[in-house]
Amino acid sequence: MRELTVDLGARSYPIYIGEGILNDIGTLFEKHGIGKGSPLLVVTDDHVAEHFLEPVVSLLRTAGYTTASHVVASGEKSKSLKVLEDVVTTALQAGLDRKSTVIALGGGVVGDLAGFVAASYMRGVRFVQIPTTILAHDSSVGGKVAVNHPLAKNIIGAFHQPEMVLYDTATLRTLPDRDVRSGLSEMIKHGLIWDAEFTAWCEDNADKLVGLDPEALQYGLYMGCRVKAAVVSQDERENDLRAILNLGHTIGHALEAVAGYNELLHGEAIAIGMVGAAKLSVRMGNPEHVYTVTKRIFKKFGLPTAIPAHMDTDAIMSAMMHDKKFSESKIVYIVPTDIGKVEINKNVSADWVRDIVDQLKQED
Amino acid sequence: MRELTVDLGARSYPIYIGEGILNDIGTLFEKHGIGKGSPLLVVTDDHVAEHFLEPVVSLLRTAGYTTASHVVASGEKSKSLKVLEDVVTTALQAGLDRKSTVIALGGGVVGDLAGFVAASYMRGVRFVQIPTTILAHDSSVGGKVAVNHPLAKNIIGAFHQPEMVLYDTATLRTLPDRDVRSGLSEMIKHGLIWDAEFTAWCEDNADKLVGLDPEALQYGLYMGCRVKAAVVSQDERENDLRAILNLGHTIGHALEAVAGYNELLHGEAIAIGMVGAAKLSVRMGNPEHVYTVTKRIFKKFGLPTAIPAHMDTDAIMSAMMHDKKFSESKIVYIVPTDIGKVEINKNVSADWVRDIVDQLKQED
Repeated sequence: MRELTVDLGARSYPIYIGEGILNDIGTLFEKHGIGKGSPLLVVTDDHVAEHFLEPVVSLLRTAGYTTASHVVASGEKSKSLKVLEDVVTTALQAGLDRKSTVIALGGGVVGDLAGFVAASYMRGVRFVQIPTTILAHDSSVGGKVAVNHPLAKNIIGAFHQPEMVLYDTATLRTLPDRDVRSGLSEMIKHGLIWDAEFTAWCEDNADKLVGLDPEALQYGLYMGCRVKAAVVSQDERENDLRAILNLGHTIGHALEAVAGYNELLHGEAIAIGMVGAAKLSVRMGNPEHVYTVTKRIFKKFGLPTAIPAHMDTDAIMSAMMHDKKFSESKIVYIVPTDIGKVEINKNVSADWVRDIVDQLKQED
Repeated sequence: MRELTVDLGARSYPIYIGEGILNDIGTLFEKHGIGKGSPLLVVTDDHVAEHFLEPVVSLLRTAGYTTASHVVASGEKSKSLKVLEDVVTTALQAGLDRKSTVIALGGGVVGDLAGFVAASYMRGVRFVQIPTTILAHDSSVGGKVAVNHPLAKNIIGAFHQPEMVLYDTATLRTLPDRDVRSGLSEMIKHGLIWDAEFTAWCEDNADKLVGLDPEALQYGLYMGCRVKAAVVSQDERENDLRAILNLGHTIGHALEAVAGYNELLHGEAIAIGMVGAAKLSVRMGNPEHVYTVTKRIFKKFGLPTAIPAHMDTDAIMSAMMHDKKFSESKIVYIVPTDIGKVEINKNVSADWVRDIVDQLKQED
């Protein structure tokens, strides 16, 4: 088992990564002072529930915990205020009090939803993350939790740090291949913004990672979480540095907003976005290899590097301008300056970005 | 103008109290670094809007601010997730960004709702309170914000401190007499838990306070806010000491839950609750005058001191057991030990409380 600390002063917490570590959940909960006098609530989705809800609940009960559960439909639609209200209904009926803990068992949607329940139920209770996707190695570190509004994603939320993250790589074996690749896209992003050596390691180990080789997976997740933790430790509330984690997300989010259901997964959209950021980088005078290496890596992982030609440039640009990353109407863009290095550029012209979007539609 | 600081380290903020100070809103906003590049959102209710929305918006615009507004129906029903979503719709349409400020113009309901919008919109933006009721001198200090769930009040919320509180006593002149008395009940509470001298001052100045004498009102609000601020400064997240602010609320909340619409205002319910707490105190061996003085004061303010006889004791007890103040099924009760002094007693028996409820139904 690998262990890593997200260093946030009084809100510091550990991430445990290992094969089969869910079996130790009772011991880990006890170690972290989670008391048995107040009920726990496990929030999960119907896909994850099928494989892992019963085992997790039964391990917790064996350890002496009272446990309720709430299963939501899998998918982004569950990140709504309506579903939040439903989860709170379950919490109230199960008698959750201020000393209770909410457990997110699942991917990013479940983590964001359950995290916001934990942040707001009785103005804040404890929270434990059990990610079951590779993508969630990103969303489960850093405390950003939220639900969507019909007009905007992640617009109603909080910063609420978990007590711990329990990452059992055995849970990843039920993931469809496309979700595996999509999740690895965020892992690669962590290399691209912070660590050229880890980026090279990712490229060299592409086949092992896609094939879910346990050792490669644990190391990759550990390193990805480590970058995320380092960034978050320096800027918990996203005032500044933390924005670099949005590499590829300016275009990526816009593509997700415009794409039809399931046309682009999050990791796929930001892979295209990262290729776009690399193109922008070269246009701004940075070395050509920023683009060639970035593109080569995503190709190696079988991730898309072009915007589907049928997508409308105007629609993409319009979605982008509504993105909450833009403060006071200036366009903030995360631009790689080399492999493993990025800068936050607050003065990128919308016209240049539009050019990049057009070019990405002709990319191979 | 009186000024007071709520001392919370980096989250410290001032409370300004004075007659006509809303006229200085532009200057005060500038002084607190609220920029003009991002739009403001004023949240208010239809009653308050009638008198104060246009003047406030026009003062802000004159000062150079871009201002949107959202008017909710007055009353507790507006503290819902549905209304929260509506306010966020307005915020998005008005282009509020991370540097924007949400302004609560109104009483406790508006403060709680707008405060939770500010706490959760884009994971937290700035917040200014402009209370227009006496009751709100309590709710506007301390950062507790929330909406209701169909099964429980204030169950979904946050701790989110405002940038400042702007208390213009001129806004109180449109209040119905019953709301004035109800609001003064929280002011008296602040004396009872913390300051015997201020309690005596309240009793001596009952007629002036009820008659909204400007000088008495400013001093009373200042002192009430000062007690609240002192308590909150020592226990921002309600881990311990802050619970003393709930004097009278154990029975009070239960009465509100059981009473029909408008039968008991909040301040009326907690006045009865404080008489109940005083009776419990005497039963526990504290001096008789804790009860006689407490009751005499509320009588002097024309506030109720008895539970309406038609209310069902079982229903009251059942509502009480669902109250979120009870952690791990133990009954926590705030018990006065003398005038101006309280203790947090974590082992009060439910049977004793039931006796008190029965006795309060026979009180004059």
